[in-house]
Amino acid sequence: MQGTRSAEADFGHVSAPSRRVSKVDSLRPTYGFDDVSLAPGVETVEPSEVDASVGLAGLHLRIPILASAMDAVVDVRLAGELARLGGVAVLNLEGVQTRYEDPDAVLARIASAADADVQGLLAEAYASPVREDLIARRIAELRAAGSPAVVAATPGVARRFGPLCAQHGADLFLVQSQVSSARHLAKGYDPLELAEFTRSMTIPVAVGNTTSYDAAYQLMGQGIAAIFVGVGPGAACTTREVLGIGVPQITAISDVAAARDAFFDDTGRYVPVVADGGMRRGGELAKAIAAGADALMLGSPLARASEAPGRGTNWGMATPSPTLPRGTRIRVGTVGTLERILFGPAHVTDGSENLIGALTQSMAALGARDLAAMRQVEMVYAPSVAAEGKSWQVRGR
Amino acid sequence: MQGTRSAEADFGHVSAPSRRVSKVDSLRPTYGFDDVSLAPGVETVEPSEVDASVGLAGLHLRIPILASAMDAVVDVRLAGELARLGGVAVLNLEGVQTRYEDPDAVLARIASAADADVQGLLAEAYASPVREDLIARRIAELRAAGSPAVVAATPGVARRFGPLCAQHGADLFLVQSQVSSARHLAKGYDPLELAEFTRSMTIPVAVGNTTSYDAAYQLMGQGIAAIFVGVGPGAACTTREVLGIGVPQITAISDVAAARDAFFDDTGRYVPVVADGGMRRGGELAKAIAAGADALMLGSPLARASEAPGRGTNWGMATPSPTLPRGTRIRVGTVGTLERILFGPAHVTDGSENLIGALTQSMAALGARDLAAMRQVEMVYAPSVAAEGKSWQVRGR
Amino acid sequence: MQGTRSAEADFGHVSAPSRRVSKVDSLRPTYGFDDVSLAPGVETVEPSEVDASVGLAGLHLRIPILASAMDAVVDVRLAGELARLGGVAVLNLEGVQTRYEDPDAVLARIASAADADVQGLLAEAYASPVREDLIARRIAELRAAGSPAVVAATPGVARRFGPLCAQHGADLFLVQSQVSSARHLAKGYDPLELAEFTRSMTIPVAVGNTTSYDAAYQLMGQGIAAIFVGVGPGAACTTREVLGIGVPQITAISDVAAARDAFFDDTGRYVPVVADGGMRRGGELAKAIAAGADALMLGSPLARASEAPGRGTNWGMATPSPTLPRGTRIRVGTVGTLERILFGPAHVTDGSENLIGALTQSMAALGARDLAAMRQVEMVYAPSVAAEGKSWQVRGR
Amino acid sequence: MQGTRSAEADFGHVSAPSRRVSKVDSLRPTYGFDDVSLAPGVETVEPSEVDASVGLAGLHLRIPILASAMDAVVDVRLAGELARLGGVAVLNLEGVQTRYEDPDAVLARIASAADADVQGLLAEAYASPVREDLIARRIAELRAAGSPAVVAATPGVARRFGPLCAQHGADLFLVQSQVSSARHLAKGYDPLELAEFTRSMTIPVAVGNTTSYDAAYQLMGQGIAAIFVGVGPGAACTTREVLGIGVPQITAISDVAAARDAFFDDTGRYVPVVADGGMRRGGELAKAIAAGADALMLGSPLARASEAPGRGTNWGMATPSPTLPRGTRIRVGTVGTLERILFGPAHVTDGSENLIGALTQSMAALGARDLAAMRQVEMVYAPSVAAEGKSWQVRGR
Repeated sequence: MQGTRSAEADFGHVSAPSRRVSKVDSLRPTYGFDDVSLAPGVETVEPSEVDASVGLAGLHLRIPILASAMDAVVDVRLAGELARLGGVAVLNLEGVQTRYEDPDAVLARIASAADADVQGLLAEAYASPVREDLIARRIAELRAAGSPAVVAATPGVARRFGPLCAQHGADLFLVQSQVSSARHLAKGYDPLELAEFTRSMTIPVAVGNTTSYDAAYQLMGQGIAAIFVGVGPGAACTTREVLGIGVPQITAISDVAAARDAFFDDTGRYVPVVADGGMRRGGELAKAIAAGADALMLGSPLARASEAPGRGTNWGMATPSPTLPRGTRIRVGTVGTLERILFGPAHVTDGSENLIGALTQSMAALGARDLAAMRQVEMVYAPSVAAEGKSWQVRGR
Repeated sequence: MQGTRSAEADFGHVSAPSRRVSKVDSLRPTYGFDDVSLAPGVETVEPSEVDASVGLAGLHLRIPILASAMDAVVDVRLAGELARLGGVAVLNLEGVQTRYEDPDAVLARIASAADADVQGLLAEAYASPVREDLIARRIAELRAAGSPAVVAATPGVARRFGPLCAQHGADLFLVQSQVSSARHLAKGYDPLELAEFTRSMTIPVAVGNTTSYDAAYQLMGQGIAAIFVGVGPGAACTTREVLGIGVPQITAISDVAAARDAFFDDTGRYVPVVADGGMRRGGELAKAIAAGADALMLGSPLARASEAPGRGTNWGMATPSPTLPRGTRIRVGTVGTLERILFGPAHVTDGSENLIGALTQSMAALGARDLAAMRQVEMVYAPSVAAEGKSWQVRGR
Repeated sequence: MQGTRSAEADFGHVSAPSRRVSKVDSLRPTYGFDDVSLAPGVETVEPSEVDASVGLAGLHLRIPILASAMDAVVDVRLAGELARLGGVAVLNLEGVQTRYEDPDAVLARIASAADADVQGLLAEAYASPVREDLIARRIAELRAAGSPAVVAATPGVARRFGPLCAQHGADLFLVQSQVSSARHLAKGYDPLELAEFTRSMTIPVAVGNTTSYDAAYQLMGQGIAAIFVGVGPGAACTTREVLGIGVPQITAISDVAAARDAFFDDTGRYVPVVADGGMRRGGELAKAIAAGADALMLGSPLARASEAPGRGTNWGMATPSPTLPRGTRIRVGTVGTLERILFGPAHVTDGSENLIGALTQSMAALGARDLAAMRQVEMVYAPSVAAEGKSWQVRGR
Repeated sequence: MQGTRSAEADFGHVSAPSRRVSKVDSLRPTYGFDDVSLAPGVETVEPSEVDASVGLAGLHLRIPILASAMDAVVDVRLAGELARLGGVAVLNLEGVQTRYEDPDAVLARIASAADADVQGLLAEAYASPVREDLIARRIAELRAAGSPAVVAATPGVARRFGPLCAQHGADLFLVQSQVSSARHLAKGYDPLELAEFTRSMTIPVAVGNTTSYDAAYQLMGQGIAAIFVGVGPGAACTTREVLGIGVPQITAISDVAAARDAFFDDTGRYVPVVADGGMRRGGELAKAIAAGADALMLGSPLARASEAPGRGTNWGMATPSPTLPRGTRIRVGTVGTLERILFGPAHVTDGSENLIGALTQSMAALGARDLAAMRQVEMVYAPSVAAEGKSWQVRGR
């Protein structure tokens, strides 16, 4: 209309300008896991010769898997088992593990509560104070279980718990909030100065979550050892519905990986990128690496392990908001040991089991000997609608 | 086909021209709420320090919320309560409030009628004439209840009711029709001359609804104090099915906001943009502001308040067409007080409660201290399909 | 992959060329009714002053509506009624009307047959020969009923029935096949030479269906008086599934309208475009005109009239293929008189009733006084997903 | 955000570079069967005059149909029948046919097993060794049944079985793996050198499956006689979910066909392209040819024949992975003879029967006399959503 009619429209006392700049005319398209697919190339590799190991902030991981700092996913026992299998778990410093001597009783109560009671129970469980002696004890237990001690806290308590953890032998300290920025503005108090904090810490500091190239680049400039990517990655995540915020995970990983590469070019320092959230099947792990991730942090997929403290349930919020809840306890089921979830044998054909087997087989078919090569494979835009081959089609060989 | 075959096609007595200009080859893409998402940047702000206030045609609103001029949404009581909470209600000058001394009896009958009877009941209820004495009385009651007196009428009765409302103390007069244009053409009668009308009125005049840059720019040139945006914003709205008309709301807001900014650059006068329709969850409020809106007009979300005159129902048409109905009474339910809907605590995790809490938390995460900053945040194209994270995924922190 | 790897790939005995031209890299996007929406502009018009009349091959229609040449839609009675209402019906020359003295008995049998029996019954019903005396009689009856005599035949019988119809007083002869081309190639027999046929006919000849700019332009060059657009316009149409063929209707109309305009510029002759198929609701009628159509041919929407010979059913194939059926009898229901379907009052809010009321109201809201202006309104790309406003949203005024 | 804010962001010790290169910003769009449609042009052809024959690696096929090398699809009997009808079947050299003297007993057991038992049964069935004497016997039986002897093996056994098959009279040897590359890298053993293998073989060698222009071009350079296209073509195929790998079939066919044409231009040698997988209906066969395929390989559609050894079931994996299954036995049903599936009469209207009738009728409507012309027809982007014409629309003639 603008173009065709503006010439003749002249009855107001000011005529419309010929050029209109509307915000929507430069919207950037973004991509989630289901929007893309990986395309085979001119080489293939023998699956047994694929190497999926990664170095991360001083840790060497045989598999690029981190367990999320969620109470239903990580306790000392799971951390030990995951370390044995080649990955590493992140312990939540503000969850039940550091509020209770015996967190198992609390966890069992949450897992078995009726749906109607669970919000109240969660609020009550997280009202108990975090104890510094328990933080020290859990770090010692993690190391005794054969796992690196990787711990996570929100920005508000980082200055308080960071040095304590370093002193008690933690290997890596993750400062994690829903949306992490290079600059948090507050009048009422003194926000965490990240650059100062990383300089003062004697162990590596990782930060998350972000989705932005600029924010990632600036965070890297503040001395962090790794960066976590993912804000509202899944459509099921209510962050997008409640706050309108979210960047689909493939775009977020790709953008932050671009910042990592630019930062490396500029400074010679390589800050690994950890994709956090939205991955449930082998194909999604493969796509996250192909999009640029160095490692992958899994929550619910590991909450399904028989070792997981959530006993077949998961809940997202370390500190549930009393006025604006954005997550609740969901049932994920228990499908087998952590080892079977990661290395098979799979009992289902949907890709949710034998995650590492699927990742390495994908790398082999794409000709990627290691994760660095996997980050170079071709990714195409191929939204998966349920349309094609929907009925009686089966493919094989 | 055109390109590849036209060279050899030569058997008609006139050969086809080489260049074809088909209307569909320049269709502009448009965006609705579910097509976009907001992307975090390099800054975050403390939620408690966010300011969501707005000035609108001489009114100062602590929260950028208007209640729709619908009979099921606004009466004097709700207007008073909304004013107390920081927003403002718009009273329908052609609804039951100005046709009946005691509208509550009529409202109760509509709300409780059987589905089969409701169309007849609505037609009957709106057959009673609008009374000028009741208009004056409602304006006085609004002010007595502590609310500004904001009233709405269709163009056909604006010349009749406008001066009357101004004389009786109304603060803002909204001329609203389904599609508002800068120039209405009619042979049978003399249509409203808007520029003349705004000049003659002693109180500010707002106009709606439009979706077009050019129409908005020209309407602003006719002296209006605010402009309302939204024509068939929701896919559920039958205007699109019945008339084929509709511009998805994010595009409509963005275009009209662009006209506002251009008009301000050209004239120094800032005409606020009110997004009207299609918003149900906190994320949609945040996106509407980010798209360019100064304030938001809500209907059904507020019809769910225990104070709403619709008693858990809503109906869209002030004057239902007897031959082409495009809306009927629907049940929206009653979920709690107006205060809880706007400020929580939310009992659900889908974002439909604590709308202002969600908006300010979204602004904080996006680093926007006020609504002007919120209009600058990055918006991306991220259609929300139900695909990602569809089953047992949960996200938190 | 091509870009990033081809430089290093050099182990075959011929290296890959640097530039690849894949057919999919230049696919043209196309649009159906649900992909687009009409955008209001700077003008509106009084609905009562809208003129939706159209001239078509010598006929003057007060409303731009043709009834499809389907046996379940058109008989003499419906044609008379539609003529009274301002439109025109097209009688199928190869259906039951010209095979049986008393087609009503056959029609009743088809309408009431069990699903399992209907294919056999259809095959049997259309095995009876077409009788020339019945053709002449139906033409006379149409005129006696007050309707122009518009008749349709497939290309194979056009030479045989065309002159006969002209001689008995037909007003317009439509040659219609599923896909109509400017040049049909056959070795086994002599295909219809369209230019020769139109020259030899003493009444106007219309042709359909096509979807292509080039084909339409060339058909116009062969002397036709109107062109029908639509090949597999609906996703429900199995032509697309069975043959893979189909152009979404908005693109098809727009392309053929562009050919009409180019042909008019080149020759001064205006060949009206009739959109055929895929329209069920008022919004779709409005969009078809806005895309460029001069008139609209409706099948199933009119089969729902109480006057329709299909008695609440419809079937698509005049001569069902015994080996490759692509349509069958479906139940469309009977919802009211033809007048109510076209002019209301509507009993539903989905736009399927009061089609002309919806069209003229749409034109008014878009500021289009007549169909020529309606063809100039802005159309935008706005795919209608069920997402927005999906639950308790209602809009009005 | 990057654009609007990076100018002011300057508090890190390194400022962000102005240009960001994110992997997602150059994603190539890809297309599957349901994304495209074929558009009629200026010519049509008489269906009876359409020629759908193709030459393939020395074979002349009257219809461009190959039966997939799946145990549920191909045995000697079906191969004989398909040859009689004009196509050719491919026998799996590593399936039950070459492991058992009497495969029918095994096949019957698999087909009738309970769902819970089938994975174990499949694993057991394929544990028996492949016998060279049975390979020789099946080749002889194929020829005795009137069929060319086309056999398929995985790369790992190609060097062992290839010469054996050639010696016993096979006509064409297909080396097929899920993802076929021009260069397979392995340290643990000596992978198949394809160029050396094709030179050493006395019969033509075909290779598959690939989806890449570069890989296809390089494979052609290694002396192959035909190339098979398709990796995870259907959304139902779990390869995409499990491995994240897959190129929608229309894009894959188009790209490999482009490589074929470039290779032909460069070398004068024409290597036919066989589309493998994802086709179930006539429209998909037509689209595969239009995208560039020379011939089509069908699995499940033919498993529905009464002659198929799968007895109404199908399973994809010749050698099911014990740790990462990506397919299982599905029920496809038995709908009629192979002849009826290919040549009709169809009993359904969805295009899944009379596949060749549909293909030739599609070619006729598109004006394509032969497959070479069919590869030139216009293809448009027209995603088939269930929206248009969804309710009571029917189209015909």
